[in-house]
Parts: sequence; structure tokens; C-alpha cells
Amino acid sequence: MGLDHAATKPHEALSALLADEMQAVNALITERMASKHAPRIPEVTAHLVGAGGKRLRPMLTLAAAKLCGYDGPYHLHLAATVEFIHTATLLHDDVVDESAQRRGRPTANLLWDNKSSVLVGDYLFSRSFQLMVETGSLRVLDILANASATIAEGEVLQLTAAQDLKTDESIYLQVVRGKTAALFSAATEVGGVIAKADEAHVKALFDYGDALGISFQIVDDLLDYQGDAKATGKNVGDDFRERKLTLPVIKAVAKADGEERAFWQRTIEKGKQVDGDLDHALDLLNRHGALEETRDDAVAWAEKAKAALAPLPDHEIKTLLIDLADYVVARVN
Amino acid sequence: MGLDHAATKPHEALSALLADEMQAVNALITERMASKHAPRIPEVTAHLVGAGGKRLRPMLTLAAAKLCGYDGPYHLHLAATVEFIHTATLLHDDVVDESAQRRGRPTANLLWDNKSSVLVGDYLFSRSFQLMVETGSLRVLDILANASATIAEGEVLQLTAAQDLKTDESIYLQVVRGKTAALFSAATEVGGVIAKADEAHVKALFDYGDALGISFQIVDDLLDYQGDAKATGKNVGDDFRERKLTLPVIKAVAKADGEERAFWQRTIEKGKQVDGDLDHALDLLNRHGALEETRDDAVAWAEKAKAALAPLPDHEIKTLLIDLADYVVARVN
Repeated sequence: MGLDHAATKPHEALSALLADEMQAVNALITERMASKHAPRIPEVTAHLVGAGGKRLRPMLTLAAAKLCGYDGPYHLHLAATVEFIHTATLLHDDVVDESAQRRGRPTANLLWDNKSSVLVGDYLFSRSFQLMVETGSLRVLDILANASATIAEGEVLQLTAAQDLKTDESIYLQVVRGKTAALFSAATEVGGVIAKADEAHVKALFDYGDALGISFQIVDDLLDYQGDAKATGKNVGDDFRERKLTLPVIKAVAKADGEERAFWQRTIEKGKQVDGDLDHALDLLNRHGALEETRDDAVAWAEKAKAALAPLPDHEIKTLLIDLADYVVARVN
Repeated sequence: MGLDHAATKPHEALSALLADEMQAVNALITERMASKHAPRIPEVTAHLVGAGGKRLRPMLTLAAAKLCGYDGPYHLHLAATVEFIHTATLLHDDVVDESAQRRGRPTANLLWDNKSSVLVGDYLFSRSFQLMVETGSLRVLDILANASATIAEGEVLQLTAAQDLKTDESIYLQVVRGKTAALFSAATEVGGVIAKADEAHVKALFDYGDALGISFQIVDDLLDYQGDAKATGKNVGDDFRERKLTLPVIKAVAKADGEERAFWQRTIEKGKQVDGDLDHALDLLNRHGALEETRDDAVAWAEKAKAALAPLPDHEIKTLLIDLADYVVARVN
């Protein structure tokens, strides 16, 4: 399956390059999402599978394994594993956030109920666990167990940190590692580990995934304040209305005078928002250069991701992974 | 640490016999429930640990390992693992059931919120996963991954089956294996596996845990219709009011005439209950001998549990495990 050179977006080029494996992963996902006994499970999972998504995380695992010359079958299991963990996390997140929409469609908790989202999420976690046990690699299991703990801890941390003005950039980074980067870095690392790559290459893949994930999440948080709703599927100011303290606001709070601090306390900590507050928030973000600084941070993490790949040999996939890091920040540059 | 012969209840006698190991497991649980970064986690977990509970499942793992002559350290990890899986399941169950009380205390979802219960449950699942990876036994991981999937599938099945009069005894058994027996049988099986016991002994331990867990759950469902609230912590008729189709009702529905069927459809399927319905339900259960038959089933499963142990050598622990099966059904006999 050749690379389609008309595809300009690097994840599309990767997807084309890995098309056969991506198809095998999709088949494995469909097979393992089924349930003989509980008809509610295929209902909910079919809704999620139907919604698509870019399958970025499983693609990273396949790319890492291929870049390291792997020729066995287990990168498929690992790719399905990370997608299951991701999907389970989304199901639980939508319960936690009381979301009504995901990828432009009603969420499972809205279509069925919170119970189904909690329990089908648990089911997907346990199915991901079975898939990774099949690889027979204790090291892979260790990596994914640690990633799962980091994800859950980051999610709990976010519960209390998101509405607390004392949350600083280092706490934000912990939350971001939990909600996004831990699964990105596990996805790339296990690709290297299953291929029995050199330790230096495994570390390079971990560092790439970690930095790419952080950059990806910072961009997401930035787009919430300056995005184009049609392109992002999010409305400007969703995080502000949901009182989520993300990097742009953390930067503005750090430079706030007394009056500005009182504004953030009222709107984020106490959640008492009135008409015009979002405009004022945007004004404060611009006044302190918080959006520009956030963009600079995202670019710096993307550069770190690219630099991390240096130890790896030249390869078409390496080039596309570098392009992917650039593409992540191109959305805001 | 000698066995206290004044302790007449077999789980208390087991607990005394395994006192040193139980203490080590409790220390491990406390250590691994902590979280450096997310203060909400120790708050919620301290509430759960403080509530105690009999720690029956970890005790079964320790007992099985000791019965098979294990002298390594990893039965402690496995015992903590099964308790974490159990606790995570309780946290998610309370969200699903919208429960306000557990073990006579307010539930975590009431004291904090559903979000915390979902995410701290996820955290405990991931911590259990780390603990079992530390044992280095792929077979143990395989057993626990399969048990997790059976648990989650059983919970989802219960969502749809519990209010559907078409649910028969075989579906009920699947739900019971999911909500109770899968973790009991995994708890005893991994104790044998970590001790590298003969296959016949491992199978005996699995069969014992499976039958004990089924007996335990049937008794629980029976007590809901004829229990003493003080002894069980449940009010008579909770399952009826919550429209949960359990074994006594399944048996009564199977023998229902047209009018009785309409009664069950109204009260369980449609949930339209009025004063006096519980008394009428009890009357129907008695009229068809449903409570007696349910008790007979519980006793038959306890006998099956005892018989399963036959291949294992004579041992103080084997005797106590046999006593435990008798004790489970003594609550209703």
C-alpha cells in the first residue's frame, strides 16, 4: 500500500502508509468490543466506533513499532489496547463532565445513561487488559499499568485543581500528562518495546509521545479561547463557562492585579458568571499576552518532540512523525 | 499466631489464622491507595478503608496460597489486588445504583460526588493492575484480566436484565457470576497459581470460589426478602423497590398466572408501585415456594463448593473453607 502523496496532513499520510495495519486494528477493535451476553455493550460501542475519530493513538503505536522494524503481530493488540483505554476514558469523562456532545454527536451518557457509560467504560478497560496480556510482555504490561495510574490520578487531580486559582503551571502539566500525554507516550513506547528496540530508541519514542501529547493538549486548551468553532467542534469559551482553569488563564492569573484576581475568583472559583464575562476574560488574556505565551509553550513542546526523535534512524515514518509535531501546532500558528 | 478457638465464625477463625498476612495486606492496601498528587484520592479511599468490611476476598487468596504451601511474598500483592478490584467495583456500583448508604455509612458519591467515585474507582483499578504486574506471573494476569471482563460484562447485563421479566435463571446466573462469583473464583485460583499448585488443585480452588460466590449472592438476594434489617444492614424489599429481578422473583414469575404476571410487569418492569405491593409480592413468593427453592439452590451451591475441595490435602485451612461454605448458607437455614 503506497503513500498517497496528495495527502498533505501528516496523520493522513501515516494512516495511508499504515493502511493495512490500521484496517487490521479496526477489525480487532470491532471483534473485541463485542459481547456475547450483554446487548447494551455492542449498542454503546457501535455508537462510539461509528463516531470515528482519527485513531491517532493506535496509529502512533503502529508507527513506532514499524519504525523499529517490528514484524510480529502484537503491535495490533497494543494499538487496539490504547484505543480501548482512550475510549473508556472518554466514556467516563463524559459522565464526569456531564457532556451532551462528543465529536458532534450526542454522548453515550445522554443516549443511554450514566450507568451504561460507567460500566461499558469498565468493560473496555478490562478488554484492553486482556489484549495486552496476550502480547506476553511483562514490560509492556508494566508501562500500560503505570500509564493507567497516571491517567486516573491526573483526572482526579483535575477535579480539584481546575477550579482553584492556586493551580500553577506545574500542576497544569501534571493534569495534562494524565489526561493526554501519558497515553501518547505509552502508545509510542510500547511500539518500541514490542519491537525490542535499543533502550535509547525506546526512550526517544517515550519522550516524543510525552512532548507531542503535551503540545496537543496545550493547543486544545488554546483553541478553546481563539478557535474556529467549525474547525474544532468546540465553541469559544467552553472551558471558561465550565470553569476549567487551563494554561491561558493560569498565565493571566499569575499577572493579575487585585481587581483582575477578583474577576477570576468570581467567574472560575465561584462560577458566578454574567453576560460579558467571556469578553472580559478574553480581554485580560490578550492584555497579558497569555494567549501568545501559551502558543509559544505549545511550539516549544512540539520542538522538544521533534528533537526527541534524533537518536532514531532516518525513515519515512520518522519524517512523518516530525511533520505531525509541526502539524499539531500549525493549528494555532 | 495461634488460632483463637473461641472464634466460632469460620471467616473470623481464618482471619486469626492468617493474622500476620492480613496485617501485611492492610499495610500494602494503605500504601497503594495513597496518591502524591491528587488529594481527593486519599480522602475518598480513607473513607472506604475506614468503613472496614470483612476483607473476605483477600482472605480467600491468602488462604488458597497457604493451603498450597506458598512461601513467597506475592500472595500479599494478589490479595491487595482483589480487594482493590472489589472496592473499585463498589465505588462504580454506588454511582450506578445511586446508593446513599454502604456498610451503614454514607457512600462516597453522596459525600463527594459521582465524578470522584468514577475516577477514584478508575484509579484503584489501575493500582490493582500495577500490583498484579509486580507478581511477574502472566498466568495470574490472564486470570485477573478475564475476571475483570466477566465482572464488567455481568454488571452491564444486569442493567438490562434486572427489569426484564424474560430474565431466566441462566441469565441470573451469568449476572451473579459477574457481580460476585468471578472475583471469588479469581481470588482462590490465583492463590493456587502463585503457589505453583498442581492443575487439579488450581481447578479445585477455582470451582470452590465460583460455587461459594454464587451461594453467597443467592443468600444475599434471599435475605432481601426475608432478612433481619439489623443483621443484614438492608431493609426487606430493597431489591423489589429498586426493581431488581433476583432469583426468588424469577422463580415466582415462572409459575405466575396471568394476573400475577401483570402484577410483576407493573411493579418490576414498569416500576409503578403502590402501598401494599411488597406484601403482595411476599405473598406470591411464599405461595409458589420461591423462597424455599431459592434457599435450596443456595445450599446446593454451598455443597458444590465443599465438594470441589476434595482433591486438596487435609489441612486446617481446608476445614475452615468447608466451614465457611456452611456458614454462608447458615444465615438463611
